[in-house]
Amino acid sequence: MTLGTWLDGYTERDWQTSSDGTVRYALIGLGWWTTDVALPAIASSELATTTTVVSSSKEKVERIASENDIEHALTYEEYHDGMAADGYDAVYVGTPNAYHLEYVETAATLGKAVICEKPMEATIERAERMVSVCTEHDVPLMVAYRMHTDPAVRRARELIENGFLGEPVQVYGNNTQPLLEMIPDPDQWRLNPDITGYGTSVMDLGIYPINTTRFLLDRDPVAIEARMSSHHEAFSDVPDERSSFLLVLEDGVQMTCTASQNAHQDTQLTITGTDGQIELRPAFHGTCELHLSGDGLDAQISNEFGATDEMREEFDYFADRVLTGESIYADGHHGLLDMRIIEAIHRASETDATIEL
Amino acid sequence: MTLGTWLDGYTERDWQTSSDGTVRYALIGLGWWTTDVALPAIASSELATTTTVVSSSKEKVERIASENDIEHALTYEEYHDGMAADGYDAVYVGTPNAYHLEYVETAATLGKAVICEKPMEATIERAERMVSVCTEHDVPLMVAYRMHTDPAVRRARELIENGFLGEPVQVYGNNTQPLLEMIPDPDQWRLNPDITGYGTSVMDLGIYPINTTRFLLDRDPVAIEARMSSHHEAFSDVPDERSSFLLVLEDGVQMTCTASQNAHQDTQLTITGTDGQIELRPAFHGTCELHLSGDGLDAQISNEFGATDEMREEFDYFADRVLTGESIYADGHHGLLDMRIIEAIHRASETDATIEL
Repeated sequence: MTLGTWLDGYTERDWQTSSDGTVRYALIGLGWWTTDVALPAIASSELATTTTVVSSSKEKVERIASENDIEHALTYEEYHDGMAADGYDAVYVGTPNAYHLEYVETAATLGKAVICEKPMEATIERAERMVSVCTEHDVPLMVAYRMHTDPAVRRARELIENGFLGEPVQVYGNNTQPLLEMIPDPDQWRLNPDITGYGTSVMDLGIYPINTTRFLLDRDPVAIEARMSSHHEAFSDVPDERSSFLLVLEDGVQMTCTASQNAHQDTQLTITGTDGQIELRPAFHGTCELHLSGDGLDAQISNEFGATDEMREEFDYFADRVLTGESIYADGHHGLLDMRIIEAIHRASETDATIEL
Repeated sequence: MTLGTWLDGYTERDWQTSSDGTVRYALIGLGWWTTDVALPAIASSELATTTTVVSSSKEKVERIASENDIEHALTYEEYHDGMAADGYDAVYVGTPNAYHLEYVETAATLGKAVICEKPMEATIERAERMVSVCTEHDVPLMVAYRMHTDPAVRRARELIENGFLGEPVQVYGNNTQPLLEMIPDPDQWRLNPDITGYGTSVMDLGIYPINTTRFLLDRDPVAIEARMSSHHEAFSDVPDERSSFLLVLEDGVQMTCTASQNAHQDTQLTITGTDGQIELRPAFHGTCELHLSGDGLDAQISNEFGATDEMREEFDYFADRVLTGESIYADGHHGLLDMRIIEAIHRASETDATIEL
């Protein structure tokens, strides 16, 4: 079988274990990602539906519920009071980082399954409390790493498992964007350490290459070095307008990353082995493109696998797990390790030391 | 003027100050790079000619001289004895690293101009002696960084000077190759620390992104962190079968690099600024390709500037300097800084510490 045939014949949704049933989601936090990306993703899903939306403003939440034909429109207070709790099975937490925990705590108390945006929370300690409360109330917890359900990423992972790279040698990940051009507000939450957590570029952008590499190579970091700095006035409260970090993964795989919230947009994840190279570029925004180079290939080939909605796949994946009780790949412990890695990157930069994990 | 017009109208050889005269080169060390690349480059040059070849074997050097219609064929001993010294004006030293100094010392004593392959020597101390002896005898010394005369690199440099990137933010450089597939000999000199110097991947490959970035951004490193490791038996005497390093350049520009002599071949140099991105890929082998992405561009564009022979340009550049006495960009002090950077990368990896330069 040629590589092209293999790529074309790849089984979509190899993870799916259920084809009937519906999970009713409550969406918490109605920022643009929730309204413009998550809502349409669930609307087009197979196993999920949105029955409830939750936000700070009664007026806003009622308007969005009405526009999208959603049954329940709750304020945060009403959500915490358990109003309409019979109307949903799971919650999606899409608020700023430091506000994740309080909504997860209520969900767990109410016995609801939880899918929470990444990074899990603002600090390791709060992320640990999230894991504890979900364990205590025996509710499923998943961290929303949308790359795990991207078809290009899943194909890359299977190629790596099948030895396409030979022995993995090194990884480079990049995630840069001009945050202040995208959201022209110097007081936005991503630049406020009380809400974002350890910083902005690693928490919000660097987490993509870190976590996608863990998923692709099935290897975690064991040693970390890092440098970061802030220059622009809007970044004066966070340490990492610019960040670079060097991770040694299990088996001596060497990984370098760059991430910046104040740079021209580009995303790249390149894994080079003794026998080949797999590159995702663009990797983390827009349609993820797979580029392959290896001994069995005369030339570099590129594949686009259509505009698959990663978020639809993710909501269906979690719905599948809620319906069948199958294990969740990106559970709370998986997400917690990213929090420890990110904190270690910040500590490595502050102390100029190598941090062993 | 559009960017495309600017790129097309770029002045080749903006460095050239002389159009007559000829510099007669003696080529020292007849490995494949000298015979297959340097000899034809000089044959096609404007200001240079090869009159002398020097090697260990009388039989080999006479055969190569005869095949290429070259006047003088010398053994190393004959060269050191000053034989046929009136027949050449400059020497090109293309021997393994640890043998550069002895040929430069003789050249300086004979009053010949010197162009020496990079890295300059096996250690900082020997590179310093090279600078001293050339200063003492007042002969021009250039280190052979062929990227400086590549037209794609020179266009990139001018674009950066003209503000195309905005403020430079970060750099990623990669240089990987499967050395044992290219030269299937586990005892080759690049794996012998007595001859190669501090190691193999940073000395031989990592030097490309380091030096090309210094040239493009006109900024040098101020802090260094690094990790390296060897796994394959053939690399047991060198520390850096795999290497990753993180350089902070002047003005807080962050640079990460990967280099490995035991990985699938790929070369990349990507500089990202607040307003745009310039990428060379392939960067260091084959025809260097320039890729641009920026505010003034709707899409990423690529440009190939024909198969310009970087080595011909380099030999003509040095010949031009020898003829006119104009200053040499990559002089001994320029090359010496790379030696200090490479040694610091090795020391940073050994000590797990940040090295300030």
